[in-house]
Amino acid sequence: MDRDEAAALDVADPLAPARGAFRIPEGVVYLNGNSLGALQPAVEERLRRVVTDEWGTGLKRSWNDAGWAHLPQRVAARIAPLVGAEPHEIAVTDSTSVDLFKAVVAARRLRPDRRVILTDERNFPSDRYVLAGIAELLPGTEVVAVAADEVEARLGDDVAVVTLTHVDYRSGRMHDAARLTAAAHDAGAVVVWDLSHSTGAVHVDLADWHVDLAVGCTYKYLNGGPGSPAYLYAAERHHDTLRSPVAGWFGHADPFAFGPEYTPAAGADRFLAGTPPILSLAALDAALEVWEDVDLAAVPHRTRALTSLFVELVDARLAGYGVTLESPRAAELRGAHVTIGFGGAGPLSRAATAAGVIGDVRPPDLLRFGFSPLYVRHVDVWDAVEVLHDLLADGSWDEPRFRATETVS
Amino acid sequence: MDRDEAAALDVADPLAPARGAFRIPEGVVYLNGNSLGALQPAVEERLRRVVTDEWGTGLKRSWNDAGWAHLPQRVAARIAPLVGAEPHEIAVTDSTSVDLFKAVVAARRLRPDRRVILTDERNFPSDRYVLAGIAELLPGTEVVAVAADEVEARLGDDVAVVTLTHVDYRSGRMHDAARLTAAAHDAGAVVVWDLSHSTGAVHVDLADWHVDLAVGCTYKYLNGGPGSPAYLYAAERHHDTLRSPVAGWFGHADPFAFGPEYTPAAGADRFLAGTPPILSLAALDAALEVWEDVDLAAVPHRTRALTSLFVELVDARLAGYGVTLESPRAAELRGAHVTIGFGGAGPLSRAATAAGVIGDVRPPDLLRFGFSPLYVRHVDVWDAVEVLHDLLADGSWDEPRFRATETVS
Repeated sequence: MDRDEAAALDVADPLAPARGAFRIPEGVVYLNGNSLGALQPAVEERLRRVVTDEWGTGLKRSWNDAGWAHLPQRVAARIAPLVGAEPHEIAVTDSTSVDLFKAVVAARRLRPDRRVILTDERNFPSDRYVLAGIAELLPGTEVVAVAADEVEARLGDDVAVVTLTHVDYRSGRMHDAARLTAAAHDAGAVVVWDLSHSTGAVHVDLADWHVDLAVGCTYKYLNGGPGSPAYLYAAERHHDTLRSPVAGWFGHADPFAFGPEYTPAAGADRFLAGTPPILSLAALDAALEVWEDVDLAAVPHRTRALTSLFVELVDARLAGYGVTLESPRAAELRGAHVTIGFGGAGPLSRAATAAGVIGDVRPPDLLRFGFSPLYVRHVDVWDAVEVLHDLLADGSWDEPRFRATETVS
Repeated sequence: MDRDEAAALDVADPLAPARGAFRIPEGVVYLNGNSLGALQPAVEERLRRVVTDEWGTGLKRSWNDAGWAHLPQRVAARIAPLVGAEPHEIAVTDSTSVDLFKAVVAARRLRPDRRVILTDERNFPSDRYVLAGIAELLPGTEVVAVAADEVEARLGDDVAVVTLTHVDYRSGRMHDAARLTAAAHDAGAVVVWDLSHSTGAVHVDLADWHVDLAVGCTYKYLNGGPGSPAYLYAAERHHDTLRSPVAGWFGHADPFAFGPEYTPAAGADRFLAGTPPILSLAALDAALEVWEDVDLAAVPHRTRALTSLFVELVDARLAGYGVTLESPRAAELRGAHVTIGFGGAGPLSRAATAAGVIGDVRPPDLLRFGFSPLYVRHVDVWDAVEVLHDLLADGSWDEPRFRATETVS
């Protein structure tokens, strides 16, 4: 393949028009949507309206007049089709960590006679910390973390909850969610998936997979903005029995009745808690509008095409400089980011960023590149690899100015 | 007093210049800052910059370059002086309900051999729901709710935690926080105050009161915007022993090391959890700048002057129409809102709103009016009471168009 062929693929792609909704800075190849999705001008406009008109002029009347009170449900209805759920199975609120806490505690309480929360030892750090916190909080609870390949073998009648991140934040390796969910159910466990690196990028069908609970972030492939609210999925069949540990008023069946007793709302809304973050929810609502015109079936295809092209070009152009592929080679085992190994990962990433190609680093020696299917093009993949190649070929990645440490990567 | 005297008080007031930082809509007397504080143009400008420049152009680099990673600490340093705390005693994150959950669970774990969480039966509904959820979650925990006046008498060696809202959301009644905290300590309990209706309006000094933990919202008298992040206070003397039940990565001692074990951060930062909501935090950061030029000692004085004027005018102008005072008559027992009773509270409130005087209703028969000390003037109080008087005098409050029910009040 050459660059013209890559450009031709972009022209033919059914998702190509979506890029027009985003504002990617001039001269930038943005391959870090797996960390923070790009901005859409529609989000800017919506925030301006929410702040200046709804807050500034409407003031507290906007809880009714501008629909703020029902914004969590409005955003839930947008997320539901992206994960194969019904709107009343989704609650949009809080952070992924807080939602994971609520989901895993609720799941654990469905199996009071079992003690183990089973996870993958490579699960995202915040997820592991949340689980450790739960084990410390709830007597008779133990976290067992095993290698990703050994989760199925560890299942047994002591396992209350299996919780995994569908796409590994580091390697991009994707679990077979349908198979693991079925195996966990066969062993009598409740399953909680973290979809942070999945939704909006790979095939997700929670109903088809028969998942019990799930959580996910919205600031990666859903482009909701830095720290935008997370979502929690609770399958309808569990609605009557699930209890959120954080019983706040927005999770009440009738929040504005101000009654003395807590009666949980029907559906996933019972996992709402405090007053919703309206500015962030409105930004997310606007960010999700782009999906209305997207053929969801085309998304995983596009992701695989982009990541496969990157893998092919890494092999062809970078392997000779000591760059190794650290993600699965089989496209069906990968999410939407690809990780490569290189002894000078930090300096190479910073040199690439200076040249307009933005990815990130997982110290000490991994670089990650994310291929957000709505705005990354085949030519971006091509150009990014050429930039990396040129930096490696002339040794300029190793200049002193690129050796500084970054604090957040 | 007449209107000219009210205007003269405004001219003489040391807090008068603060109103210039706010944009109150033309023709509106906004007396609902106890629900949602007003907008400052500085917040609009900051959000524009955060969205368009930091997110849109800086993209994920802004976690370093724009200081997003340390925004919780930056905002904490702004809130600390408003509550008599040190910056490292404040964590700004999540909603008030989630923070109350974390604070009360952490407090309860300091007294494992005691079973009771003691509260006021009139405490804010979401607070009561959160406590009920904790009792359901943690074996051997019971919530005891007594009348506000009976809290002290109920203290005993079974009480692990006393948690109260400093200023009652309904009546505006203010607890004597110093005395109750001392009494609870004498009985061996840990104290958690909810300052949602206090901070920015009345005297709060957590160090002086020797409080253990506290939470509060920022969208009332701190004007952070709808659903802006809450804060949690943890006294330094407890830092080494307090554990948050929600152990997320931003509460880790070294969040970006991605280590396998959870090591809590020093100070109140251990109560941070997931990725911070950057848009909301930035809005709050900008909203709090106004306090840099405020003489904090003048705030409670201003609040008392405004609420006392309102009480005086209610007595003089509205009592004859069946309006009753439902807040404490003694200024030192009140927060910054005043509640009045009237058989047609809903229609009267809606008629007043239509006439530009915005308060709110607590069904069936209470109207609340909040006197945010940074932007409500003595003339606003005067004008509001005159509007209410005129609506009552000519009976126009009782028109059919004002009898519709509102869903959120």
